[in-house]
Amino acid sequence: MVDNSQEKAVVLVSCGLDSAITLAIARELGFPCYCLTFDYGQRHRIELQSARAVTASLGAERHEVMSLDIGWMGGSALTDLSIDVPDAPSSGIPVTYVPARNVMFLSVALGWAEVLGAHHIFIGVNAVDYSGYPDCRPVFLRAFEQLTNVATKVGVEGGSFHIHAPLIQMSKAEIIRRGQALGINFALTVSCYDPGPEGEACGVCDSCRLRARGFHEAGVTDPTRYRDKAPNLA
Amino acid sequence: MVDNSQEKAVVLVSCGLDSAITLAIARELGFPCYCLTFDYGQRHRIELQSARAVTASLGAERHEVMSLDIGWMGGSALTDLSIDVPDAPSSGIPVTYVPARNVMFLSVALGWAEVLGAHHIFIGVNAVDYSGYPDCRPVFLRAFEQLTNVATKVGVEGGSFHIHAPLIQMSKAEIIRRGQALGINFALTVSCYDPGPEGEACGVCDSCRLRARGFHEAGVTDPTRYRDKAPNLA
Repeated sequence: MVDNSQEKAVVLVSCGLDSAITLAIARELGFPCYCLTFDYGQRHRIELQSARAVTASLGAERHEVMSLDIGWMGGSALTDLSIDVPDAPSSGIPVTYVPARNVMFLSVALGWAEVLGAHHIFIGVNAVDYSGYPDCRPVFLRAFEQLTNVATKVGVEGGSFHIHAPLIQMSKAEIIRRGQALGINFALTVSCYDPGPEGEACGVCDSCRLRARGFHEAGVTDPTRYRDKAPNLA
Repeated sequence: MVDNSQEKAVVLVSCGLDSAITLAIARELGFPCYCLTFDYGQRHRIELQSARAVTASLGAERHEVMSLDIGWMGGSALTDLSIDVPDAPSSGIPVTYVPARNVMFLSVALGWAEVLGAHHIFIGVNAVDYSGYPDCRPVFLRAFEQLTNVATKVGVEGGSFHIHAPLIQMSKAEIIRRGQALGINFALTVSCYDPGPEGEACGVCDSCRLRARGFHEAGVTDPTRYRDKAPNLA
């Protein structure tokens, strides 16, 4: 097995399931992890508390929460309170899409990686059981990796950055089984797009449905507490 | 001439000469301009006041100043007070390089452009009389433009974004002559990497020297006030 203990990795961590498992995978690979969470005007503060609990439980060299207030832009149900989070699946790219969000997140991660001397960036995107966001696809990640070679001092000097998305081709059930094998405390994670103040999930948004279906298919019990009731998987 | 009055453009505006002239060019092309300035922990507040004065003088539909506090990362003389701004030219990429800065700036501009329905982004980078930053080169801008096609809903749906860098192949003297022809009030702009509280320039940093040489070669008088004395052009 490759010894990564002398390398550093920047890991993007939200409050969700996927980024928690991504961090656990980076830790298993031996990387000292520098975790980065964005406060971008999420609907509830519980999401930031949850991210802190996740990194504390998995072990991180450092965890920075950076304010990236894009709420003024509007345009997404996740950051614009005037747009409701939909309670039924939509066709095409849904209103929960935050324009260019992963471009922004990876850009800041890239800047920090260059300062730290890290050449590895982990992101928990997934292109199987996902909401159809363009910036969660392999073609996007490859384009971003190419960009890093021409955008940075490291690239100009012949080095390179590696964007790791270990979950990208896994189903939600596979991700959950992997998380279980890695000993993730699923109760620390919040997937709902519109959680209550204590992290209670709505049970009806896209993200709640994907999570519930994944746990069901994995045969794992989800400790998520719901405001009303768990998603109907029929 | 193409009628751009029905299009929108997002224009990145700092306090400097180049972005002021870039905005004037976008206005001359007829674009309604949505200006974006970042507060990223610059050494002095005068830089943000200067950016506001520039957009007010040139006419913008809207001007947003967004906090993007990357000072905690350190690693650049422009954002890290423990690193001095050098007072002599260096070889290679200088310590004033802010890792991935233009990637971050363009990413946020891209997000706002997508929300606004704008397909044009203007940035005042220049690859002739510049400080050697990797993210000021045409190869970087082309890679970013390619990224936008796979990163966004607009791209997935067959649209595209255009990154305009009208100054990229101009010398500083050419830029200044163009600015003069466009009626720029040069006194509103601040180029110094370490200006005093009223915008007084140090006269010794890379950026002061490039500016002074440009004005000299253009045969235009620079209204910049210096803390001590103007750069020695010998």
